[in-house]
Amino acid sequence: MITAIVNVSLKPGVLDSQGKAVHHALDSLHFKGVEDVRIGKQIVLKLDSDDKEATRVEVEKMCEEILANTVIEDYTIELV
Amino acid sequence: MITAIVNVSLKPGVLDSQGKAVHHALDSLHFKGVEDVRIGKQIVLKLDSDDKEATRVEVEKMCEEILANTVIEDYTIELV
Repeated sequence: MITAIVNVSLKPGVLDSQGKAVHHALDSLHFKGVEDVRIGKQIVLKLDSDDKEATRVEVEKMCEEILANTVIEDYTIELV
Repeated sequence: MITAIVNVSLKPGVLDSQGKAVHHALDSLHFKGVEDVRIGKQIVLKLDSDDKEATRVEVEKMCEEILANTVIEDYTIELV
């Protein structure tokens, strides 16, 4: 069993309205010193496999096809 | 400047309908061997501070107050 942790985040420069809203809320709650907030997704997949190399290729394909919108999002894959 | 990476995930046992939908979609696309999919949020905060200890306390407060719903969600904090 391999666990793949996929972090999907908006590319730099793409407007993050959810992050902006949270930033504003933190200001309203008087949290000081917050310069920037960006919000992404963390997808945790449990995969029935023992072959890390093949799994990485498979998860990359998942990211390209469905997990990330590669026009506006970057992704990282970590296998544990 | 300190970057805080906050991962917010549903507690084990809490139904993850978004994860279920993605799991189903991966099955439909003929990805094999996917046992489970859970989807959480990754919040990246840039904080104007040099004091890691104080920052951790501050970010913990943010998590408890607004970033996570601690009834159904767990969170982890990583400072870099």
